[in-house]
Amino acid sequence: MKRPIPPDPAFESRIRSSFDQQGLMKTIGAHLAQVSPGEVRIELPYSKAITQQHGFLHAGILSTIADNACGYAAYTLMPADAEVLGVENKINFLAPAKGERFISIGRVIKAGRTLAVCSGEVWAYNNGQNTLVAVMQTTMMALVK
Amino acid sequence: MKRPIPPDPAFESRIRSSFDQQGLMKTIGAHLAQVSPGEVRIELPYSKAITQQHGFLHAGILSTIADNACGYAAYTLMPADAEVLGVENKINFLAPAKGERFISIGRVIKAGRTLAVCSGEVWAYNNGQNTLVAVMQTTMMALVK
Amino acid sequence: MKRPIPPDPAFESRIRSSFDQQGLMKTIGAHLAQVSPGEVRIELPYSKAITQQHGFLHAGILSTIADNACGYAAYTLMPADAEVLGVENKINFLAPAKGERFISIGRVIKAGRTLAVCSGEVWAYNNGQNTLVAVMQTTMMALVK
Amino acid sequence: MKRPIPPDPAFESRIRSSFDQQGLMKTIGAHLAQVSPGEVRIELPYSKAITQQHGFLHAGILSTIADNACGYAAYTLMPADAEVLGVENKINFLAPAKGERFISIGRVIKAGRTLAVCSGEVWAYNNGQNTLVAVMQTTMMALVK
Repeated sequence: MKRPIPPDPAFESRIRSSFDQQGLMKTIGAHLAQVSPGEVRIELPYSKAITQQHGFLHAGILSTIADNACGYAAYTLMPADAEVLGVENKINFLAPAKGERFISIGRVIKAGRTLAVCSGEVWAYNNGQNTLVAVMQTTMMALVK
Repeated sequence: MKRPIPPDPAFESRIRSSFDQQGLMKTIGAHLAQVSPGEVRIELPYSKAITQQHGFLHAGILSTIADNACGYAAYTLMPADAEVLGVENKINFLAPAKGERFISIGRVIKAGRTLAVCSGEVWAYNNGQNTLVAVMQTTMMALVK
Repeated sequence: MKRPIPPDPAFESRIRSSFDQQGLMKTIGAHLAQVSPGEVRIELPYSKAITQQHGFLHAGILSTIADNACGYAAYTLMPADAEVLGVENKINFLAPAKGERFISIGRVIKAGRTLAVCSGEVWAYNNGQNTLVAVMQTTMMALVK
Repeated sequence: MKRPIPPDPAFESRIRSSFDQQGLMKTIGAHLAQVSPGEVRIELPYSKAITQQHGFLHAGILSTIADNACGYAAYTLMPADAEVLGVENKINFLAPAKGERFISIGRVIKAGRTLAVCSGEVWAYNNGQNTLVAVMQTTMMALVK
């Protein structure tokens, strides 16, 4: 998608406010690194509290930050009175999620009136190197109240 | 699948030990409710620490407990010297994840030598009623060390 | 889902008429074996015209008949003035699609106002034995004209 | 992925030979438009024989050519004695598949020893305009004989 124009000029504050209400984001220590029209980035530092059995980031947390970045990316292009709802997502795990911090990127591929299709990525930053550790393809829905 | 026979008779203790090493399971308050050949259940009480913006369970946590139940279900049928690795998963969200507690069920549909295909469900328990809130279809891989 | 009630009593003839308009179903030789509320079955005999490189049924044809059975299963529960639209699907291939004939089964898991989530299966019949060769999880959408 | 190097220098002839053995590609009228390391394109002209109920290309055929392009993209990076096997795929439909011809593009995102993750696209060409009508995310497996 090229240069999508958000129908709600206040999209960023709407999204930051929604993000701040997610108890889970506080619990895992994630924050919104970027909110642009059709693209959102979430940053997450590593901690033992969110690991799987080998001490790497848990796959469920990769899903969480990829899905959340996609959901908010879709939300940037929705009208002010809409809510965003996750319909489904699919994630492939590419490499062990080993790193000091992680960035998920959600991008809108196609935004329709009701549904938006987004793609997500999760990158691990480890000792100055970044690795793509997961890719996601997902459907989001606009619910107008 | 009918009556799969685990090649490792000590499968349950192997899985409980692995589960206990997942920092994330402790953080969210999940525990293993059942470990049977080809089927695993995880129970999770509701808490504000794992919510999305409307106070319901976060979609990422639904993915987490569904994927984990599926991974360990596949692991029950793997040899003692194997590790289980999540290849990919796909989840559909069916209803708001509203409840006091949640149960995820992972079941092996087909276990091959290298790959296992599993299906997952997440049920919400709310005021004595249970609702299917998510279904998952996933691929797990056996890594022999 | 238990005993869903189709809002359009003429759902079966509506679906049979739609199926007959699909050029592809004629080309591959598929027919509607069953149309029930929330469940549809499609039968397909083997032919060389629909094979992959080893002479088995092509994966794309497994996707085709699974997705079609799911779409029409969702369509049984839609109002008379709605069209059914495939939003997305995910398929896992479990075994080589070897057989004289194949049956796909589509079932509605959850039917909402706009979206329906369905699960699909494809079974191969080979020398008197039947094998589950693929499972699908898919989202369908009702478009009211 | 940047500049993957095929372990089998004869990858293109191996893939063209495999493609020619697929009865389905002949039936639908598809041909291999490009075979490069890690990327394959399939071209398909429109015909009434491969339509859904409204006369557009059938979703199952979009899946077929996307999955096939991804499978052969993965196959370009596999050793000469390997077979490629489709593990699973997930496709989102973005727009009606309306056009005179269609191009599917399969690209390898990550090629491991056993599994490869690929992304697929299907573009419709209609009256001089091209539209992205579907995106796919899929897992392929190398089977060494």
